[in-house]
Amino acid sequence: MELFENVERTELSELGEFGLINLLTKNIELTNKSTIKGVGDDAAVLDVDSKKILISTDILTEGVHFDLAYTPLKHLGYKSVVVNLSDIAAMNGKPEQITVSLAVSNRFSVEALEELYEGIFMACKRYGVDLIGGDTTTSKSGLFISVTVVGKAAEEKITYRNGAKKGDLICVSGDLGAAYIGLMILEREKRVFEVNSEIQPDLDGFDYVLERHLKPEPRLDIVEKLNNLAIVPNSMIDISDGLASEIMHICNQSKVGCRLFEDKIPIDIQTEDTAKKFGLVPVTIALNGGEDYELLFTVPQEDFEKIKNIEEISIIGYITDAAEGMSLITKDEKVFELKAQGWDAWLKQEQRS
Amino acid sequence: MELFENVERTELSELGEFGLINLLTKNIELTNKSTIKGVGDDAAVLDVDSKKILISTDILTEGVHFDLAYTPLKHLGYKSVVVNLSDIAAMNGKPEQITVSLAVSNRFSVEALEELYEGIFMACKRYGVDLIGGDTTTSKSGLFISVTVVGKAAEEKITYRNGAKKGDLICVSGDLGAAYIGLMILEREKRVFEVNSEIQPDLDGFDYVLERHLKPEPRLDIVEKLNNLAIVPNSMIDISDGLASEIMHICNQSKVGCRLFEDKIPIDIQTEDTAKKFGLVPVTIALNGGEDYELLFTVPQEDFEKIKNIEEISIIGYITDAAEGMSLITKDEKVFELKAQGWDAWLKQEQRS
Repeated sequence: MELFENVERTELSELGEFGLINLLTKNIELTNKSTIKGVGDDAAVLDVDSKKILISTDILTEGVHFDLAYTPLKHLGYKSVVVNLSDIAAMNGKPEQITVSLAVSNRFSVEALEELYEGIFMACKRYGVDLIGGDTTTSKSGLFISVTVVGKAAEEKITYRNGAKKGDLICVSGDLGAAYIGLMILEREKRVFEVNSEIQPDLDGFDYVLERHLKPEPRLDIVEKLNNLAIVPNSMIDISDGLASEIMHICNQSKVGCRLFEDKIPIDIQTEDTAKKFGLVPVTIALNGGEDYELLFTVPQEDFEKIKNIEEISIIGYITDAAEGMSLITKDEKVFELKAQGWDAWLKQEQRS
Repeated sequence: MELFENVERTELSELGEFGLINLLTKNIELTNKSTIKGVGDDAAVLDVDSKKILISTDILTEGVHFDLAYTPLKHLGYKSVVVNLSDIAAMNGKPEQITVSLAVSNRFSVEALEELYEGIFMACKRYGVDLIGGDTTTSKSGLFISVTVVGKAAEEKITYRNGAKKGDLICVSGDLGAAYIGLMILEREKRVFEVNSEIQPDLDGFDYVLERHLKPEPRLDIVEKLNNLAIVPNSMIDISDGLASEIMHICNQSKVGCRLFEDKIPIDIQTEDTAKKFGLVPVTIALNGGEDYELLFTVPQEDFEKIKNIEEISIIGYITDAAEGMSLITKDEKVFELKAQGWDAWLKQEQRS
């Protein structure tokens, strides 16, 4: 964890809107052949030959999606791009362009926004995405970041939420719950700091879960691996609200049911240990903690031989008839019905308990 | 002017995020062949054959772009779409899809957001645009609306800001300054109301300027007429920040100068009369008042015979060498250098004077 200092401070009013836009966009380099025109006109122009275009958008609001008390602006910029790229990964596509719109209050300096954009550009560079437009304006209070991403995919490879079939294997990438545990650590240290600002945050030993919260990555590597093995999932979604919520989206839209197995759900050891220290059941965090940005997908059983060779993929259950409902089989073989909770409901429950 | 009443009130918390999204999107009908998949997955999917795709985005923030004291939510929804469609018109394209992202504080009811969406859908229906996605989240305070629009255009018809040539005729659609005068009327009535809430707003006789502010229209009709006459402007931009600011964008990006003639700048009689009542010079309002959403474009002189037959197009000047600068010739033949002001600077100046 690095802390950063701003020694300079230029007021936004000194630059004006056009000056700010020029400043923030002057280093843009376009890398994709499909990007004909980026920032600098009324609209961006894309060339897309015969493939399909994917569009997705997310808005991040201060005090709801992020807390600037412990979120470095560079990380925030990076994350605001990643959450959008993850949506394109979930369609089995390739992200190529983004637009970024900001509404910022005048408590932010130009340097602060440059820091934010540094993170945005880092994510763009890492994932080969062009920033092609946006809008920057003032807000009466708080910071709002709205990103729209444009991606491409061949029609026959697009993976919707509604394609899961009875018998499909349910797969998940990486591990789950870490981002939520990272958030809990940061919230805890914030409360300590609010009581006594002399105490430095105690973040040692939490590197993995903190990084999972502050700097998530879109699983475009998984998309590439599936592609290399000629696997096209029957359905796919990214895990932004928690495994339980996402598998229910797939089941509801596909009109199927599912069985998940607790002992197959991948949880990192640091996540598990920390959850236990907080008196929480790790699998509950994996099911309901949000912002993992892993991929949840289903493949026909015939793909088992291919899928088992991909690192970082866990097979956690299978798709059933809708009549069998959506259930979790615990380690001691009890059957629990999965319930929709989502991120907000979960946080409320945590606060109550 | 209609006032609207909300007799019902459902709290956002009663519905939850998914319930709200379902409610707001359940009546979406997709009309464009290019829209393969709209709302309901991680990303929208578009089919675009051989044309170019245009993307633009705008964010509207409460207290900055709109004041809910006098902006009906339906109008706000309509306008938030229109300002984006206007950007596609300015590229000489056809808008086909939009995404809408909202961040709203809990002081808004479900009915209020339905009202907002009613306006959004009205604009979509009127202009044949599909709403294909978005994100809805909470804000700590205020309402933020971020719209991204996707449009299409044949490559050879796209009009950039940087294509103006020496000798080009400078054309503008409709009339200018009315939206700013409408805003002034609304601000005046708000101040009266704040002093004495018994006094009903006096809006009689201001229908045109009020409608220009509250319910602007994108000039897609002009795009169609140009197309029918086989006119492709050398450059084009929409007038969101005022004529002066926009012609400077064209001149700077095209590396040319311009001469505008005061007596050619189209100003509606209601705009002119009201400006004078406020002690303002009408042409100053036309040059610096924002949000007209008319089109400003340049065409080669050879197109004069064709362009003069289009209703609602005024030829207001011509393009010169960059060395001649950017100037306005007044009615008494004085030469003034055009200065960048833009919307914000202008408002500040108004407040000072």
